[in-house]
Amino acid sequence: MNTASGVVIVGGGFGGLYAAKVLARAGARVTVIDQRNFHLFQPLLYQVATGGLSPGDIASPIRAVLRRGPRTRVIQAEVIDVLPNERVLHLRNHDPVTYDILIVATGSRTSYFGHDEWAPHATGMKTVEDAIHVRARVLNAFERAEVEEDSKQREFLLTFVVVGGGPTGVELAGAIAELSRTTLVHDYRAFDPRQASVILLEAGERILPAFPPDLSAKAAVSLQRLGAVVRTGTLVTSVDANGVEIVQAGNQERVDAATVLWAAGVTTAEFGDVVAHRFGAERDASKRIVVTHHLTLPGRDDVYIIGDLARAAGPGSQPLPGLAPVAMQEGAYVAKHILGRTDRPFRYRDKGQLAVIGRNAAVCDLGRARFSGFPAWFLWVFVHIGYLIEFDNKVLVMVQWAFAYITRNRGARLITGKPEAG
Amino acid sequence: MNTASGVVIVGGGFGGLYAAKVLARAGARVTVIDQRNFHLFQPLLYQVATGGLSPGDIASPIRAVLRRGPRTRVIQAEVIDVLPNERVLHLRNHDPVTYDILIVATGSRTSYFGHDEWAPHATGMKTVEDAIHVRARVLNAFERAEVEEDSKQREFLLTFVVVGGGPTGVELAGAIAELSRTTLVHDYRAFDPRQASVILLEAGERILPAFPPDLSAKAAVSLQRLGAVVRTGTLVTSVDANGVEIVQAGNQERVDAATVLWAAGVTTAEFGDVVAHRFGAERDASKRIVVTHHLTLPGRDDVYIIGDLARAAGPGSQPLPGLAPVAMQEGAYVAKHILGRTDRPFRYRDKGQLAVIGRNAAVCDLGRARFSGFPAWFLWVFVHIGYLIEFDNKVLVMVQWAFAYITRNRGARLITGKPEAG
Repeated sequence: MNTASGVVIVGGGFGGLYAAKVLARAGARVTVIDQRNFHLFQPLLYQVATGGLSPGDIASPIRAVLRRGPRTRVIQAEVIDVLPNERVLHLRNHDPVTYDILIVATGSRTSYFGHDEWAPHATGMKTVEDAIHVRARVLNAFERAEVEEDSKQREFLLTFVVVGGGPTGVELAGAIAELSRTTLVHDYRAFDPRQASVILLEAGERILPAFPPDLSAKAAVSLQRLGAVVRTGTLVTSVDANGVEIVQAGNQERVDAATVLWAAGVTTAEFGDVVAHRFGAERDASKRIVVTHHLTLPGRDDVYIIGDLARAAGPGSQPLPGLAPVAMQEGAYVAKHILGRTDRPFRYRDKGQLAVIGRNAAVCDLGRARFSGFPAWFLWVFVHIGYLIEFDNKVLVMVQWAFAYITRNRGARLITGKPEAG
Repeated sequence: MNTASGVVIVGGGFGGLYAAKVLARAGARVTVIDQRNFHLFQPLLYQVATGGLSPGDIASPIRAVLRRGPRTRVIQAEVIDVLPNERVLHLRNHDPVTYDILIVATGSRTSYFGHDEWAPHATGMKTVEDAIHVRARVLNAFERAEVEEDSKQREFLLTFVVVGGGPTGVELAGAIAELSRTTLVHDYRAFDPRQASVILLEAGERILPAFPPDLSAKAAVSLQRLGAVVRTGTLVTSVDANGVEIVQAGNQERVDAATVLWAAGVTTAEFGDVVAHRFGAERDASKRIVVTHHLTLPGRDDVYIIGDLARAAGPGSQPLPGLAPVAMQEGAYVAKHILGRTDRPFRYRDKGQLAVIGRNAAVCDLGRARFSGFPAWFLWVFVHIGYLIEFDNKVLVMVQWAFAYITRNRGARLITGKPEAG
């Protein structure tokens, strides 16, 4: 048996890696298990989806991140079961792994709210493969428009619907609008790419609901300035290969679109179900597992749950949102708790929120200070580069952005993978 | 009908794009047709295959390269037929395109010398998808070795066979050896990546046969210093999922290897067959189409053949080799010939050859001057960056290399796509 023991972390996302780094630095025995060989910097996935960055720019090999810990170990495998009493994990195509302490940080995946039949038509935005698929769909739509002579059909090809007005949806809609208004503007002969219509659909009453209302309004104005249409209070009731059915203010309507992208919802990853089942854990409506203020499973000091899978209490009665900074802080906290460096309850230090709409346009909420436009965009760029560098010295991304900023070009506009139908 | 007329170029590789750029600059009406939306800088594909660069770093959208020509047009489609008398091209899922002058520059594809059943086991090195697949195979082999306890089986996983001792095979073998000896050296716990054995198989009597013998010998020494094994005079007689059968000096032998990569041969792309058939063209043993000294089809002033598809006469009776600089010069030449700027026969100006083996190691043959080691490597870096910048301002690659050089890291080590069996 492949006995790892020590601390075993399932998931190499923000939560898992921050925990691993703190533990490794203290010389603890740590094993990180992930299905993929790389950590993905998800907040920039929309840049890959719109040709601004390459997948390699926002992914870091987990082994490379943890190479300095002499007692760290990385296993690339899928964890399929956990036996609480034996403290054993079962892995696919791999010997079982035992643990003294378990940290579950398996995160979230795209949810279609029970409509998995929408998945083939509305591409999600969680994995590198998703982003490459979105990139191919968006660029292919322009290619097909170039050879289309029927104006009605061309309009269909040049309609891009983004479902979900959270940060991912807003950033994606802004980037597609910018792509059509600046990057591609001289590339086609049969039509003007500025004809493209980008429609952002949000079920709630405003986009970026986690931000203060005035910043939501500013973000909507910025998107409209880029040429995108923002429709709030709009519920998607059906998705098919040719568009979406929506209901707004009681009225049913159809939007024909060749490209529908899904940034509307997430649910916990599958291993979360196994953990909940095996430990008999309590879950909230979003299937997140309820944890103590030390981020352990109630009654189980040897099992921590962090990141998008955890329902940790925030200020007031609100649970903490599923954001990268929350996962990072939770990861660092549980590592310190395991090392005996803290016994205080976990408290999330909210350093503020940022969402970017396009070149020079972003919104920023630092609690006391709120701002938008160029200063917010500038801060956003530096915060994200800071995170990237912390993991993997990806100074390159900064250079790439500097170039893109000056030239308004997006260099990674490849259509790869299986060809689309049509 | 989608009448393009003017000059129509099939293929957006080095030959096609150089022709298009010269014609566009002169204000001519030019249409470029390619199946893909990007030009691929193939000489650096092995860097993608070994995690040094991302696909976006070596690919440029064809539309972006040609955006400045107001009378240039780019069609992303597959050309399936040509009617010589009507001067019409038939495209898949697209209206026919007429031409006044046709330039065929469709290049080459991987050839298994009649053994297409080897293809699933011996990944080729011609497309971005090939390179991503090679990268996944190589990195997966290390991942699987980490969880393998049987030492015999681990040895099998850590054996990498590269078939073909031309520049691509040499560069690939050198990069894999370097990956295992430097980049990955601290990443694994269960084994030492330096155990990996990289075997380069060449049927001829020396590697890099297009170079002078002393440089071939130097390249072999450099590869051996990196830890690769070079076996010349070795014919591959069979490839399966677990390795290759070879014959060397009359002795049959089996090499067990989890990863077999194919850089041994190319043949002309499929559209070359159609052209040869429709025009009744003469072809050589490698299926290249014989052209006049103006690079036209004999008896057909309206059809030019350039690049890997053309069998153009070189100095003496030797045909010109299938190299990027040959295709570039042919492309520029036919454009000038079409514009009436030259009527002299095409003459290839050989500026020399370069092949890189690893960090600080390369061989260079400039005709009069021959050198190897760091000076050749340095020249190689600058020549390649020069070409990249000419197309697409990819200054980034330079920055990336500078970083990789200092840190000995390879940042784009992602395993993506469908999971491997096992």
